[in-house]
Amino acid sequence: MPAPITFYFEFSSPYGHFAAREIEALAARHGRTVDWKPYLMGVVMKQTGMVPLIQVPLKGDYMKRDLQRTAREMGFDFKLPDPFPFLAVAPSRAFYWLHDRDPALANRFARAIYDAAFMEGRDMSRPDAVAEVGAGLGIDKDELRAALKDDAVKERLRIETDKAIESGAFGSPFVMVDGEPFWGFDRFPEIERWLESGGW
Amino acid sequence: MPAPITFYFEFSSPYGHFAAREIEALAARHGRTVDWKPYLMGVVMKQTGMVPLIQVPLKGDYMKRDLQRTAREMGFDFKLPDPFPFLAVAPSRAFYWLHDRDPALANRFARAIYDAAFMEGRDMSRPDAVAEVGAGLGIDKDELRAALKDDAVKERLRIETDKAIESGAFGSPFVMVDGEPFWGFDRFPEIERWLESGGW
Repeated sequence: MPAPITFYFEFSSPYGHFAAREIEALAARHGRTVDWKPYLMGVVMKQTGMVPLIQVPLKGDYMKRDLQRTAREMGFDFKLPDPFPFLAVAPSRAFYWLHDRDPALANRFARAIYDAAFMEGRDMSRPDAVAEVGAGLGIDKDELRAALKDDAVKERLRIETDKAIESGAFGSPFVMVDGEPFWGFDRFPEIERWLESGGW
Repeated sequence: MPAPITFYFEFSSPYGHFAAREIEALAARHGRTVDWKPYLMGVVMKQTGMVPLIQVPLKGDYMKRDLQRTAREMGFDFKLPDPFPFLAVAPSRAFYWLHDRDPALANRFARAIYDAAFMEGRDMSRPDAVAEVGAGLGIDKDELRAALKDDAVKERLRIETDKAIESGAFGSPFVMVDGEPFWGFDRFPEIERWLESGGW
């Protein structure tokens, strides 16, 4: 059984949303599974001195156009939530809390958070909104809200963010295939060729 | 006859080099020609507050790996020149000077400059080195060197750079297809689909 591919992403990243829609199918075509790893890009952005793309003159306007164009080709209506980017602490903590109980459910939760943010434009920085998305998957709202304040859960997200950055992740999506890093949703065709050929 | 596609690029950009190797074939597959437009990204980087990717922590290391990986897949040995990035004023001026005399020759010259920089690692900021590359295509060295100091040629590059930025270009490669902007070499498959389908 080949190793899973690792999918690092930030919940506030629309390109992470695109990636989340396709990565399981991509991996499955090559007999791989996917290890989903949300992390907080704010931490890495401090290290690199980056600012969110949407805030960069010229690039920000291009990005808005590019997001709509990419979504049209993928066949869905894209919405940019307001505020954007949003603080992804709540959904990220909820993800790891869930993951320890039911990894498959955590992955479905991640997709649902992304859909709420980038298809419905809902503000996923809000604990109540995150709990509502969880409720749609049968997760108890009060338990989820309590988990967001749990010190062990908070620490878990800090550790996972540090580990992601130590592994080389600095963007979203950032995919690691047998130690080889691929940054960006536009590299998915390259990941496909890499998996197909075993690398070059 | 459909309109040419416009290929904005900066001579110091290795992704521009990748693009220059493929853009004519891509365009030809869809009955298009290519309008080559070198410009100086330093001007736009001041506007956007960007710094060269190679200088950004984490991203710089990834970029070096990505350049080698991309070149291996394309089947050639990539060399990063020293210094990098380099000041592309000399080859950019020479390009527009040549273009007014012989557009096809100017395009071959652009490819030759890119090959000298990113296959041989030669310093293409140097007027003498640029003149040598030109000599390899039968261009008189002294005439080329004189053109680099010509006020009309200098002004021409300033105008072309301003026009590129006004048209929306802020990266390299940056390709415009019937008013639709595409940023980055990794978007070439998307450009191909756009040309194939007429857009979406």
